[in-house]
Amino acid sequence: MAQPWNPPPSADHRARRDRLRGLLTDTADVLVVSDLINVRYLTGFTGSNAAVLVGTDPAADRISTDGRYLTQVAEQSGDLEAVIARNCLGELVEHAGKDGAVRIGFEEHIVTVAAHRDLDGDLVGTSGLVERLREVKDAGEVDLLRRACAVADEALAAIIERGLLSPGRTEREVARALEWEMYERGADAVSFETIVAAGANSAIPHHRPTSAALAAGDFVKIDFGAAVAGYHSDMTRTYVLGHAADWQREIYDLVAAAQAAGRAALSPGADLRGVDAAARSVIADAGYGDKYVHGLGHGIGLQIHEAPGIGSAAAGTLPCGAAVTVEPGVYLPGRGGVRIEDSLVVTEGGPDLLTTTDKTFTVI
Amino acid sequence: MAQPWNPPPSADHRARRDRLRGLLTDTADVLVVSDLINVRYLTGFTGSNAAVLVGTDPAADRISTDGRYLTQVAEQSGDLEAVIARNCLGELVEHAGKDGAVRIGFEEHIVTVAAHRDLDGDLVGTSGLVERLREVKDAGEVDLLRRACAVADEALAAIIERGLLSPGRTEREVARALEWEMYERGADAVSFETIVAAGANSAIPHHRPTSAALAAGDFVKIDFGAAVAGYHSDMTRTYVLGHAADWQREIYDLVAAAQAAGRAALSPGADLRGVDAAARSVIADAGYGDKYVHGLGHGIGLQIHEAPGIGSAAAGTLPCGAAVTVEPGVYLPGRGGVRIEDSLVVTEGGPDLLTTTDKTFTVI
Repeated sequence: MAQPWNPPPSADHRARRDRLRGLLTDTADVLVVSDLINVRYLTGFTGSNAAVLVGTDPAADRISTDGRYLTQVAEQSGDLEAVIARNCLGELVEHAGKDGAVRIGFEEHIVTVAAHRDLDGDLVGTSGLVERLREVKDAGEVDLLRRACAVADEALAAIIERGLLSPGRTEREVARALEWEMYERGADAVSFETIVAAGANSAIPHHRPTSAALAAGDFVKIDFGAAVAGYHSDMTRTYVLGHAADWQREIYDLVAAAQAAGRAALSPGADLRGVDAAARSVIADAGYGDKYVHGLGHGIGLQIHEAPGIGSAAAGTLPCGAAVTVEPGVYLPGRGGVRIEDSLVVTEGGPDLLTTTDKTFTVI
Repeated sequence: MAQPWNPPPSADHRARRDRLRGLLTDTADVLVVSDLINVRYLTGFTGSNAAVLVGTDPAADRISTDGRYLTQVAEQSGDLEAVIARNCLGELVEHAGKDGAVRIGFEEHIVTVAAHRDLDGDLVGTSGLVERLREVKDAGEVDLLRRACAVADEALAAIIERGLLSPGRTEREVARALEWEMYERGADAVSFETIVAAGANSAIPHHRPTSAALAAGDFVKIDFGAAVAGYHSDMTRTYVLGHAADWQREIYDLVAAAQAAGRAALSPGADLRGVDAAARSVIADAGYGDKYVHGLGHGIGLQIHEAPGIGSAAAGTLPCGAAVTVEPGVYLPGRGGVRIEDSLVVTEGGPDLLTTTDKTFTVI
C-alpha cells in the first residue's frame, strides 16, 4: 500500500535560497545556516551534520556535511557544491572569509556560545530569517502537507473500518493500530506521540494512551499525525461510542461551532489574536471559557510546532500561505472532553482544508 | 502486559546534584543547567521547558519551569523549590545573582549566543560537566537500562514466537510488530527507528525498513531498542531464514568472534581506541577490514548516543560504570551483512550483559 513520496525538486530549494538572499543584502554578505531543519528547507539535505552558506551572490552557495554523507548529499543536494568537513559551521565561515565575504551572518538563536567562540571573522548575528520564510509554504510544501494529511485521513478511516473504535479495545491498541496504518501508507514518521483518550481521559488535553479499555458511552478523542518527506500533518477527531448523552452532544456542537468560527477567521493578514478570539468567544459566550485551556493552533511544516502560533498572547498577523492548525477544545475534568482539529493553508480564496475526515457529530 | 516502570527516586537526583557540586567549587558558585536531558538527569523533571540551578551550597538548588507544568514539577521534582517562569535560564541566573552568587556558571555548549546576550551577571562558561557525570551510571540508571533491555529481549522473542521472521513478511511489517511488542511491554518510546534489513539490504548499515519481503536464504538484521523511563536499550541480532550458505556462516562467526573480543576488552580504565581495536583487529586479520565501516560502540542512557564513543578516533578511557554498546559488523554490498550488538555496563567484575537474547548462529 505504501507509495514513494518524492521530496520537492531542487528548483524549490534554489527558490527558497533566493528568497533568503533577498533578506540578506542589508545585513550581511553571506549567511551560514546551521539549524538542521533550516538546512533541510534550503537544500533538501536530511543528514545529521550539516550547514549551508547562502550568499548575496548565488555563486557563493555551498553545503557542508561530513564524510558519512558523501552519497546522500550528492543525491539530495546535487545542485550545490559540497564542502566535506566535521565542523560544518566553522568550515563554511572560514570558506566565506577566504572567498571575500566581509560580513558573515550566522544564526544567533541556534549557534552556541562555545561554537561561536571558535568562529573567526566579522560575524553578524541574525535571528529567525529562515524561520520567517518557512511560515509561508510554497507549492511543493503544500503538496507534501496535503499528502501527510491524506495519510492521516486514510489511516483513521482504516481503523474505524476495521472496527477498532469499539468497547473493549484499549487506548494503546487503537493508537498503535493508527500508527501502523500511517506507516503502511508511506508515513516516514508519526508527527508526535499519538493521543487516544477515552472516557474521563478525554478531558486531559495531552493524554498518553493507556491500557484503559474503551467503553460504551465514552468520548474517544484521537489527536495524531503523519510526517511525509519531513512534513507533518495534525488532526483531532472526537467520537462517541455506542450511545451519546445530551451533555456530550452539547459540548461537541459547541466545539464544532468554535472550530468553524476559527477556520472562517483564517484570512491573509488577520490578526493572530483575533483568529484565536473568533473561536474562543464562541466557547466563552456559552460559559465554558475556563474549560478551554490552550491556544487555538500553530503552524505546521518541517516541524510539528512552528510559527505562527495562534493564541491569546500571540503577536502579529497571519501571512497568506501559512499552514496552521485550528483546534479548540472543551474539557470537563472527570467527565470527558472534545477537541476538533484541522490542518489548513491560508489562501486569498479562503482556507484550504487539508484534513478532510468528516467532523459531524458521530456515534460509532 | 504493560507494567508501570517507576522513575528513580529523588534521592538519586539529589546524589547526582551533589556529585555535580563537587565539580563546581573551583569554577563557579552556582551552575545553571539548561540542557533538558541534563535537567532530567539532575531532577527527574521531563517537561519541555526547564532549567536547574545547582549551588556549591545545596540550599541554593532550584528548578524552574513554566505554568503549564505546575502539577508535573511537584510530582517529579517535589524535593526542589520551583521557580515558575517562561524564561527559565534567565530567571535562575537572575535569582542566583540576587542570592549572592558571584560566579554564575552556564552550559556554553548549550546556551545560544542570543540567549547568552540576555543574561546578566559574572557568567562563567562550562562545558560538558553534567555529561561527564552521566557517563558513569548509578544503580537506579542501571536498573532502568536493564529493564529497557529486557523489554527489547522479550519483544524480539515474541515476534519470533509469532512466526513473523519468515519468508513473505515485509521488513516494515516485522519492524512495526517489534515496536508494538515493545510498547505493550512498557516502552515509553522506541530508542530509534527500528532497522529490519533482509537479504542484500542487510549490507546497508542503517537500512530503513521497506515493503521488501523476507525470503529463504536471507540474512535478516534487526537493530532496535526500547526507552523505559527515558533510558534507551540498543541491540542488534542477525538471523538466517530457512537455509544458510557457507559464506553466511563464515561472516557470522567472524563478527561473533569480533564482538566477543570487544566485550572482553570492556574493563574499567581501558583505552577507548584499544577496545575498538580489540574487535576490529579480528575482522581485519580475516581480510574483511574494509567491510566494517563504523565504530565499535557508544554510550547509552538518557540519550541513545552519548559518551563515551568507542571507535578508532576516540580519545580517553572507559570509566567503571559506563553503559555502552559493542556492535561490530561486516557488510558485503549486494550480498548481505551481519551486525551483532549488545548493551553492557562496565564493572570491576567484568562487563554486565544487559541484552540477553541468544546470539549463537541461528537459522529460523
